[in-house]
Amino acid sequence: MRRHPERAAYDRTTIDAILDEGLVGHVGFVSDGEPYVMPMLYARLRDTLYLHGSPKSRLLGAAGHRAPVCFTVTLLDGLVLARSAFRHSLNYRSVVVLGRARAVRDPDEKQLALRTLVDHVMSGRSDEVRGPSDPELKVTEVVALGLREASAKARSGPPADNPNDLSLPVWAGVLPLGLSVGEPVPEGRCQVPEPAGLREYRRDRA
Amino acid sequence: MRRHPERAAYDRTTIDAILDEGLVGHVGFVSDGEPYVMPMLYARLRDTLYLHGSPKSRLLGAAGHRAPVCFTVTLLDGLVLARSAFRHSLNYRSVVVLGRARAVRDPDEKQLALRTLVDHVMSGRSDEVRGPSDPELKVTEVVALGLREASAKARSGPPADNPNDLSLPVWAGVLPLGLSVGEPVPEGRCQVPEPAGLREYRRDRA
Repeated sequence: MRRHPERAAYDRTTIDAILDEGLVGHVGFVSDGEPYVMPMLYARLRDTLYLHGSPKSRLLGAAGHRAPVCFTVTLLDGLVLARSAFRHSLNYRSVVVLGRARAVRDPDEKQLALRTLVDHVMSGRSDEVRGPSDPELKVTEVVALGLREASAKARSGPPADNPNDLSLPVWAGVLPLGLSVGEPVPEGRCQVPEPAGLREYRRDRA
Repeated sequence: MRRHPERAAYDRTTIDAILDEGLVGHVGFVSDGEPYVMPMLYARLRDTLYLHGSPKSRLLGAAGHRAPVCFTVTLLDGLVLARSAFRHSLNYRSVVVLGRARAVRDPDEKQLALRTLVDHVMSGRSDEVRGPSDPELKVTEVVALGLREASAKARSGPPADNPNDLSLPVWAGVLPLGLSVGEPVPEGRCQVPEPAGLREYRRDRA
């Protein structure tokens, strides 16, 4: 993924669509002058991204001091197979959010953030499961990151071969990639039928 | 993804398998004291990861000064749907590589790295396509990152509910996720039949 200014977008509709489709992002922060990048579940609620983790994590320590973070979400859409090695590429959509993380202390905001996170994994799920107890809330840290400084980048479409290469006897085109959803595997003691959300999740992503 | 020391692994077999299965990683680096995280295609050759990009990119500027980077690859394997909100999780495998990036200047190493990158996108592809010309090589920067400081982390298996929650009328289990490969879309002027590699790629990932 090379640097291409024409691939950038700053409108919130584009940014929100990518953030809402992704499941895991990569958060970067600086600790003792060195960069760290960790995968994290996240969810968007209006103008805020919420992340959560253990109070012992380095990220959450950094958030306590309002340290700068970078949160990046990437959706891979396809292999771009060109006639020359140089023009090979990937089709993708990504969002980069820069800002200072804020530790969420307000109990109501924390509850809402955790509901949003569970519902981002599966829509409507937070209404079906047991909500967090006080001890569970205590050992869960939630971090908020505003979307003020967010940008999207994307590549789509066929390979862009040099005109001179078009006659080469090489197959060129795109191999689409996406998320595949398999058959649900019920936990050993589960006697409950599959919820509607599970069926919808599979249908929407088929 | 909470912090769980029991999920960590340091053996190269585990690390290499994750790196070789992934396509895109997220590289983190520090610029003016702030963290940046960018998605990048990568490929492993023995003990080295290669990344490439435009000479103007901030990452490659950082690599020129042997700045510290963190490169993280994450494979998402499933949604872990528990009976309580708190025990929801994701099944995943990830690798974090810490080190100082090195700009690859040696022409032979650069050529080999670019072949490795194309072959990582699709095995055997670098033998089929036109290789990079001198001007193309000039505008492509390659960065190497050693695997000395690499670790893997993974979660697999069913949700781990509290014993008290097992009787709740909530479906619990895992929804497996993976990479789906669609039908190849030939570039408009392509008259060449689909290569074997394309068929194998789809078969191996079906």
